[in-house]
Amino acid sequence: MDNLNRIIEMIKPLDKEAMAEAQARQDMLTKPQGSLGRLEELSIQLAGIRSQAIPKIKDKAIIVMAGDHGVVAEKIGNWPQEVTAQMVNNFLRGGAGINVLARQVGARIVVVDIGVATDLEPHPLLLSKRVSSGTRNMSRGPAMTVEQAVKAIEIGVDVIEAEVAKSLDIVGTGDMGIGNTTASSAICAVMTGKPVEGVTGRGTGLTDRQLAHKVEVINRALSVNQPDAAQPLNVLATVGGFEIAGLVGVMLGAAAYRIPVVIDGFISGAAALIATALAPGVKDFIIPAHVSAEAGHPVLLKHLGIKPLLDMGMRLGEGTGAALGIFLAEAAASILRDMATFAEAGVSEEEEKNS
Amino acid sequence: MDNLNRIIEMIKPLDKEAMAEAQARQDMLTKPQGSLGRLEELSIQLAGIRSQAIPKIKDKAIIVMAGDHGVVAEKIGNWPQEVTAQMVNNFLRGGAGINVLARQVGARIVVVDIGVATDLEPHPLLLSKRVSSGTRNMSRGPAMTVEQAVKAIEIGVDVIEAEVAKSLDIVGTGDMGIGNTTASSAICAVMTGKPVEGVTGRGTGLTDRQLAHKVEVINRALSVNQPDAAQPLNVLATVGGFEIAGLVGVMLGAAAYRIPVVIDGFISGAAALIATALAPGVKDFIIPAHVSAEAGHPVLLKHLGIKPLLDMGMRLGEGTGAALGIFLAEAAASILRDMATFAEAGVSEEEEKNS
Repeated sequence: MDNLNRIIEMIKPLDKEAMAEAQARQDMLTKPQGSLGRLEELSIQLAGIRSQAIPKIKDKAIIVMAGDHGVVAEKIGNWPQEVTAQMVNNFLRGGAGINVLARQVGARIVVVDIGVATDLEPHPLLLSKRVSSGTRNMSRGPAMTVEQAVKAIEIGVDVIEAEVAKSLDIVGTGDMGIGNTTASSAICAVMTGKPVEGVTGRGTGLTDRQLAHKVEVINRALSVNQPDAAQPLNVLATVGGFEIAGLVGVMLGAAAYRIPVVIDGFISGAAALIATALAPGVKDFIIPAHVSAEAGHPVLLKHLGIKPLLDMGMRLGEGTGAALGIFLAEAAASILRDMATFAEAGVSEEEEKNS
Repeated sequence: MDNLNRIIEMIKPLDKEAMAEAQARQDMLTKPQGSLGRLEELSIQLAGIRSQAIPKIKDKAIIVMAGDHGVVAEKIGNWPQEVTAQMVNNFLRGGAGINVLARQVGARIVVVDIGVATDLEPHPLLLSKRVSSGTRNMSRGPAMTVEQAVKAIEIGVDVIEAEVAKSLDIVGTGDMGIGNTTASSAICAVMTGKPVEGVTGRGTGLTDRQLAHKVEVINRALSVNQPDAAQPLNVLATVGGFEIAGLVGVMLGAAAYRIPVVIDGFISGAAALIATALAPGVKDFIIPAHVSAEAGHPVLLKHLGIKPLLDMGMRLGEGTGAALGIFLAEAAASILRDMATFAEAGVSEEEEKNS
């Protein structure tokens, strides 16, 4: 808890001076002002986060947190729990979607076992930080204790601190955990105040009957645990997951160390709801990569008041959307750094509009 | 005209067999089926275009066509005509937005003077293919002759044929031409049948009064020239531009040589209206990178029945949106090629949904 409080106290506002300098430079570059739309906005945000008028976006990492969910005992999906560990091995061997996209954008990936239920062989690329072998079944009681939730958040902080020590300019968040859309929908319902059926989707592909069952299980979890939005750590503990808690730590740590954090889909969004409830200042450090096909994601982004960069109908998780977002952030920074100004290029500027 | 007819006759449908093979492979990759959304759809389209079950997307080019517009005499914008040539020089020196983004995605850029009004110094990177030094003022008569329009299209075909000869897997379209949103709005109004005010935007940043004047100038051009959507070459000649015609040629040539063509914003969209009117099969070879902030662009994309990948509020042109689209197309192809299958990765597949 001390470590968590220390990190939250480190979070400061965006650097307005760097942002003003970045904006002034954007307006001198050889293009009509504002004509690169969100790329320009993003470059200003990056300047404010990094406290650099021309922010460097070079060293990139995607942190993929993996954990299991006791609620799978309620049969809320079609994939066996072993898939979580199998996919972790797929990440370690480089064969998953996130490996392909991270390679394309030049990001290293950091795979963390923060709470997988199945045994995993040690691997040089695997960070073994298991809090417990999966959460407990939230439909029958708390998924974890508050102490476990804090421990998982602090692991997330440790992981990003280690990456910052290696040199880090931008970080993406990713997740793996069979059952984690169920936990994320529960968090989303509590934190946004929306009914469960409005924020619960088909995850990896449920039928109508299965979706109704998933909603019923989440409602039972909320009824049993009575989570309260005013106590975000309690929400995380009772209906969350270890990987979600780990991502909360990554987001808090990113904000503390002034690293832009590109958040992926619905699971990362649920973590963002908790992180911003713990420390509202985190929001300014978040870059929402995309809106996923999962039903609760647009609701959650609207509640956070952040607008996704992409809408590609993606719902894989793992950080795949974040990888694409990192590309766009790098593009934004490159524009600001590398484009010529009107003076440098000898290009005439716009005439007075009322001439 | 013979060259144009030859190219149109070369255009064949997408390869359904390659698409079926690509779809079958997508469904074996270690992810829930369809969970990469538009990246999956894009990979199938690429397979159909390239006639390869696993399409190679490696050699990339962005063709930037530059031309001037006589209609600037009507004061429809705030930028002096010399900016077209100045920006061409900026492209050649590597300082423009398109240079920055093309470098990031690893695309070569091909800069073509197809109708700039201002003298340009020879440059090893400049293709000097000027049909004429700018179009004539379309509000007083045809912007060019039909012969000139055909010549400009055939230049576009020549340019892409030269790129194919060097090796080309994907091409993006870009434009530069002070006044070209005016010509594009005119084309858009004729080809979609919408009123001019519904497809005319602020270009590089007009006031309300200037926008009303721009609409009035376009209406005058349509009244003077009476272009008819059933005669697309005549539309292009009377109210188009040399760079727009060149891009029509690039699109026709891309379809003929089975190269995916990532189209940029409103100007490229106007060219796509003409290209698909000349050869409807071109549509299947088009990847619409983004919807721009220019008013007519969403109208035009809807008329074409194609859905943009990105919505980033961009309106610079030059192929900047196309560069981002090329990145996404490469990501789609990489996913299809490089992800492990369930069998390769030893990952369990989804269980029967009604079990």
